[in-house]
Amino acid sequence: MTGVTHQKWWGWGVEGIAFNYRDKPRMAPFVMDRIGIDLSAPGTPPPSFDDIDVPAPRLPEDLAAELRSALGEDHVVTSDLDRVVHTYGKGLVDLVKIRAGHLPRVPDVVVYPGTEEEVRAVVDAVVASDAVLIPFGGGSNISGSLTPPAEETRPIVSLDLGRLNRVLEVDEDAGLARVQAGALGPDLEEQLTARGWTMGHQPDSFKHSTLGGWIATRSSGMQSDKYGDIADITRGMRVVLPGKVIVLRPLPSTSSGPSVREMILGSEGRLGVITEAWVHVHRLPENREIIAYLFPNWGSAVQAMHAISVSDAHPSVTRVSDGNETAFSLSTQKASKGAKKAVQDGLFGFLEKRGWDLDKACLSYVGYEGGSARVKADKATVGKIVREHGGVKLGKGPGALYDQKKFDTPYIRDFLLDIGALADVSETAMPWSRLMEVYHLTIRAAREAFDSLGVRGYIMCHLSHSYHSGACLYFTFALVSRSADMDEQLRQYWVVKKAIQQSFVDHGGTISHHHGVGTDHAHWLEQDISPAGVDVQVSLLQGVDPGRNLNPGSLIPADREW
Amino acid sequence: MTGVTHQKWWGWGVEGIAFNYRDKPRMAPFVMDRIGIDLSAPGTPPPSFDDIDVPAPRLPEDLAAELRSALGEDHVVTSDLDRVVHTYGKGLVDLVKIRAGHLPRVPDVVVYPGTEEEVRAVVDAVVASDAVLIPFGGGSNISGSLTPPAEETRPIVSLDLGRLNRVLEVDEDAGLARVQAGALGPDLEEQLTARGWTMGHQPDSFKHSTLGGWIATRSSGMQSDKYGDIADITRGMRVVLPGKVIVLRPLPSTSSGPSVREMILGSEGRLGVITEAWVHVHRLPENREIIAYLFPNWGSAVQAMHAISVSDAHPSVTRVSDGNETAFSLSTQKASKGAKKAVQDGLFGFLEKRGWDLDKACLSYVGYEGGSARVKADKATVGKIVREHGGVKLGKGPGALYDQKKFDTPYIRDFLLDIGALADVSETAMPWSRLMEVYHLTIRAAREAFDSLGVRGYIMCHLSHSYHSGACLYFTFALVSRSADMDEQLRQYWVVKKAIQQSFVDHGGTISHHHGVGTDHAHWLEQDISPAGVDVQVSLLQGVDPGRNLNPGSLIPADREW
Repeated sequence: MTGVTHQKWWGWGVEGIAFNYRDKPRMAPFVMDRIGIDLSAPGTPPPSFDDIDVPAPRLPEDLAAELRSALGEDHVVTSDLDRVVHTYGKGLVDLVKIRAGHLPRVPDVVVYPGTEEEVRAVVDAVVASDAVLIPFGGGSNISGSLTPPAEETRPIVSLDLGRLNRVLEVDEDAGLARVQAGALGPDLEEQLTARGWTMGHQPDSFKHSTLGGWIATRSSGMQSDKYGDIADITRGMRVVLPGKVIVLRPLPSTSSGPSVREMILGSEGRLGVITEAWVHVHRLPENREIIAYLFPNWGSAVQAMHAISVSDAHPSVTRVSDGNETAFSLSTQKASKGAKKAVQDGLFGFLEKRGWDLDKACLSYVGYEGGSARVKADKATVGKIVREHGGVKLGKGPGALYDQKKFDTPYIRDFLLDIGALADVSETAMPWSRLMEVYHLTIRAAREAFDSLGVRGYIMCHLSHSYHSGACLYFTFALVSRSADMDEQLRQYWVVKKAIQQSFVDHGGTISHHHGVGTDHAHWLEQDISPAGVDVQVSLLQGVDPGRNLNPGSLIPADREW
Repeated sequence: MTGVTHQKWWGWGVEGIAFNYRDKPRMAPFVMDRIGIDLSAPGTPPPSFDDIDVPAPRLPEDLAAELRSALGEDHVVTSDLDRVVHTYGKGLVDLVKIRAGHLPRVPDVVVYPGTEEEVRAVVDAVVASDAVLIPFGGGSNISGSLTPPAEETRPIVSLDLGRLNRVLEVDEDAGLARVQAGALGPDLEEQLTARGWTMGHQPDSFKHSTLGGWIATRSSGMQSDKYGDIADITRGMRVVLPGKVIVLRPLPSTSSGPSVREMILGSEGRLGVITEAWVHVHRLPENREIIAYLFPNWGSAVQAMHAISVSDAHPSVTRVSDGNETAFSLSTQKASKGAKKAVQDGLFGFLEKRGWDLDKACLSYVGYEGGSARVKADKATVGKIVREHGGVKLGKGPGALYDQKKFDTPYIRDFLLDIGALADVSETAMPWSRLMEVYHLTIRAAREAFDSLGVRGYIMCHLSHSYHSGACLYFTFALVSRSADMDEQLRQYWVVKKAIQQSFVDHGGTISHHHGVGTDHAHWLEQDISPAGVDVQVSLLQGVDPGRNLNPGSLIPADREW
């Protein structure tokens, strides 16, 4: 009807795709060893939708009539499935709640505008009737910014941007494209690639997240070292507010006062609805390679990434996993045979003879793009730095594997939930000078949290982005909750998650490098940007949206709402 | 007493330095030819300070007492000279007004806090007594944001940050320095260079502008292609607001909501007083070269700069002057003799034989920094692009000259004012696809403005910064006003300036690339960022400063003040 497809109502990605451990012979023993879970034991799958109790919509008839009149009957949807799909993102908290059928408040209606004019009609109608508007892109948010506040008594309208999914224009002279905000990663790249261009933005959520969502949460991608974070990529925008539209023309740079562009970036729906953006696009690179390297330990690996960041090389990807993440990655490899297996076994044997402790080895991927002279020079520069830090080159094979598998990771979370393990991610950024402190103390904080709960847990980390003055550390953690009770599971989760977030801000890190604030991180916002900094954000939001009609509850601490 | 030195009260730079045309034999004939002015004719120097009528300070005794108690007698100054120095920046409008002794409203007091605590005391006292606060750095602003509104009846306090001029800390691991906001360019670079570091930020105003001023106006420097604009360089900040301090820790990147950092950038004193910032610093480069090239015409020169910007090379400077600016630059060379003269004459003769119209030749400077392999590779890449666009390499000689003279240009404006010519600058940025349109139509608009006034005028331009999607065009213009009357001079100036600014926004350009909005550009702000975009800025400013105590009148259009 609407033509818009959604992710599973209960988990990541599309029906029919799921994580499979059976073709990864080393995984079950690894998981048993580290967190004591038997992957072959019968799990608890998500419930059937029929078993979920969905509150009836509470949509005033005059608002419903206005929406139908503006968008057409087909694009104003009140079905239970659609409203449930639009109730949660895909964070661990979301997944636990939806599996428990916990639905204290769901949107009363989902609307699918097909033009900016229709978006304007929706925004105006919502504000005129003092309802609440929650913009919705790919539904992959993991910081809690899509969920209606449980206590919200006003009608709730979820505005799905899925029909606004086209590349409208490519300015070939300027390397800019005008793209509608509801375009998913694949929509956007397919349309650009057909014309010989790429935007180069590839977050883990790529297949299920949208341009508008990236902008609204300040997304980063795997290749942001080269292409920039979404804040760098986004040059112009159109944003619908009640009765008006912010129009920011595409500019390479400007000194026109406090940056409105940088206020919309990260606004998580609270400053209006982004309908389209002008973004940087690049010619498809002549050459593109991902090379894998192995370092003997985390300290040397991080020093190498830092040395690369201040070198003359400009790689597209600089990523390295710590020992725990490397071990996990190796355990999830498919069975390798013949020559490939012999090479890997031979290399590992060789390294052990050279005194490596393979449990501490750190797997790194570095990406190269550009003309062949440039790629060659960058590889030489990086290769020298790797050797100086005791690392060895593994080659293109694992790099190609990384490239193929990069979007599959989120599926594992649903698989783990089936068997009672709660897994999630938390990422931060800090100056290079604080990185090891944040790393070690965050891991210690998580382990102390596992111990305090008396549960088995695992935490691993990779450095995902390098900047001149610092880097992003991206942690993944899992705890084995023996409880089947939602509240107890969430309580245990929050003990660990809070320990991690508190460690970030205590040691010079930010609350989030690229997942946004939402409701999950709002508690630490004052510690990140100072109470006076939050005052400034509140002044802005309150001035633009005095009635709290635009995604209220997200972004700022609850006690700061007006 | 205060230990803070200032620029001339009536013009650019320091007493004892002035522009001299007599050692530049080609300049007088050039100026006579182009705008009909005889440089040797007796000019009208600026007036003596004794001839200026300075309004007495109107400072309420309780506020005065509070300031003296907080800062000490020596740092609360009400002398006429000090108050006049703090009345204007150094834009053409400022210079014309101060030469005419036009002082409808001057600050009632100038304060020189020595610590952030003292800044807080000043801000709190000013707001408590409903006075007006105008932060003052190097006084080099050229967009009218330092001047008290003529109609302001409340007491006006100019807060001079000149005593806060130290590099407080260098984080060598992260490449970050914590620097006080009142540090002038030379203060800052000398302190950094002594430790082996550079910030690499060199605006034309470098010698007379401060870190805080750069941040408050979104400054760019000559080497921003490599080091980034000030918005990229500035990672953390402390900003004093009434009763509180915004503390933004240094972060390489963050997704903590609408960027408070990017709200302070460009805030021109309206969101508080910046007291210090964490900025990127870099090791002094192993190699640094500026190479000059000559292109046969503007079209090929711009195409070459664009090609460089999307190439694998990463030069520190990409700059090219149009034919008019190249001719002007050549006319201001000192007399060259012997081999140097022979080479230049020989080259120009050779180019003429090859069919070049030397009046259209465009002089370009490209800067290279880094390891020798990198510099060599970048020079090869750029050299090839230059040749492909019909350009020739002139070598390092003119580049070294550029490096030495780069901060002297602003002195010429005072010299021209002496002889009745009004000269100023306007710069913009736009996508590459609009660049030639902005260029040609802006020059046409300026010429039509000269014609409509019946005056001789000159306009010239250079491309000063290149980005992936566009560039900065930096225009310099002069008109010969035969009037000695201030109002008539300003009327004529505004006819030209308005034509230029209107052309920018009409053809996809921004109102300012790196000089800020001030009062001079506020008229076009709605056309740049849309009325709804200005609404968002006003919401922010009004929320933070409901009483309009912080530099009121700057930044937003007068009819938008609350």
